Amino acid sequence: MDYYSSQISNLIEELARLPGIGSKTAQRLAFHIINMPEEQVNKLSSAMVSAKKNIRYCKSCCTLTDGDICPICASPKRNHKTIMVVENTRDLAAYEKTGKYEGVYHVLHGAISPMLGIGPADIRLKELLLRLQGEVDEVIIATNSSLEGEATAMYISKLVKPAGIRVTRIASGVPVGGDLEYIDEVTLLRALDGRTEL
Amino acid sequence: MDYYSSQISNLIEELARLPGIGSKTAQRLAFHIINMPEEQVNKLSSAMVSAKKNIRYCKSCCTLTDGDICPICASPKRNHKTIMVVENTRDLAAYEKTGKYEGVYHVLHGAISPMLGIGPADIRLKELLLRLQGEVDEVIIATNSSLEGEATAMYISKLVKPAGIRVTRIASGVPVGGDLEYIDEVTLLRALDGRTEL
Repeated sequence: MDYYSSQISNLIEELARLPGIGSKTAQRLAFHIINMPEEQVNKLSSAMVSAKKNIRYCKSCCTLTDGDICPICASPKRNHKTIMVVENTRDLAAYEKTGKYEGVYHVLHGAISPMLGIGPADIRLKELLLRLQGEVDEVIIATNSSLEGEATAMYISKLVKPAGIRVTRIASGVPVGGDLEYIDEVTLLRALDGRTEL
Repeated sequence: MDYYSSQISNLIEELARLPGIGSKTAQRLAFHIINMPEEQVNKLSSAMVSAKKNIRYCKSCCTLTDGDICPICASPKRNHKTIMVVENTRDLAAYEKTGKYEGVYHVLHGAISPMLGIGPADIRLKELLLRLQGEVDEVIIATNSSLEGEATAMYISKLVKPAGIRVTRIASGVPVGGDLEYIDEVTLLRALDGRTEL
């Protein structure tokens, strides 16, 4: 890219390493950044460095946070006897946005995937089992509804059930507002299997 | 966004200010950045700050560069008597990628747009007129083929022609590999108007 000066090329190259950012988008972002007020560039840049430096795993639920314990695990208002198991921090945030779930979480940071060589030891399962030695009433498995998510859910349920703890799985079916016509057959069959009395 | 710790929310907010980056993409990028090696985060962050700090306008052609004069204007290999006028540095890069243009450029940093309140004084036209006092054979107008680009092209041609300098406009027509069936009528008529002898 010698048609740009070296500083611009360097910025474009660094931006293009980010996921989902191709070379065209990287160029557009680079020129936007160059035209931003210097103060805002500094804010963006230091937000990156300080997040990278200060973010670690919550010692209880393994989510990403900046203290030893995340605000959810530290809150006395939450029901610490119900643990929802999710694949990553974004999934946790998705449920937190609903504002209705009052239990706590456990973040696996991945799902079991023999295809990608990710086994039970590569996700935060050991930490979950340790937590189950405390007082826990229910483990809600909210891994994704993908092959890997389902396999992980099965694995966890086999591991947890013998301890006499209730294990549940979030429902799979037609999304609210979804048009049956456009929904795949597997989901339609799941919705049928999971039908409830009216 | 109190379901993320403050450092993560802050990073997401800063990223979401960038153009074309919505809140979902900003979340994805933020978690990617947190998982990147610290060294790479520092490289990305300092590339931004140093580009912002060091990039200025070339004193001759007004492109963005890190010296007083950009490498193209400084090159003795280029034909300095032919000036291609483009709207921005990315358009300059698009022509440089072809590797065939041997003249120099002039970057307007915008186009005349009465709708957006951008007049001739808001783009780098004065700098272009100053350059024309030197030895110039031809001004090639390569502004975009949009309403604003065309208006700018007309304006420049009226300004430059009286000085006895040749003014040309890049051709408008069917793109190479384009299928006539899918091309809009205005382009088809332009291609007809601009037909050449075989």
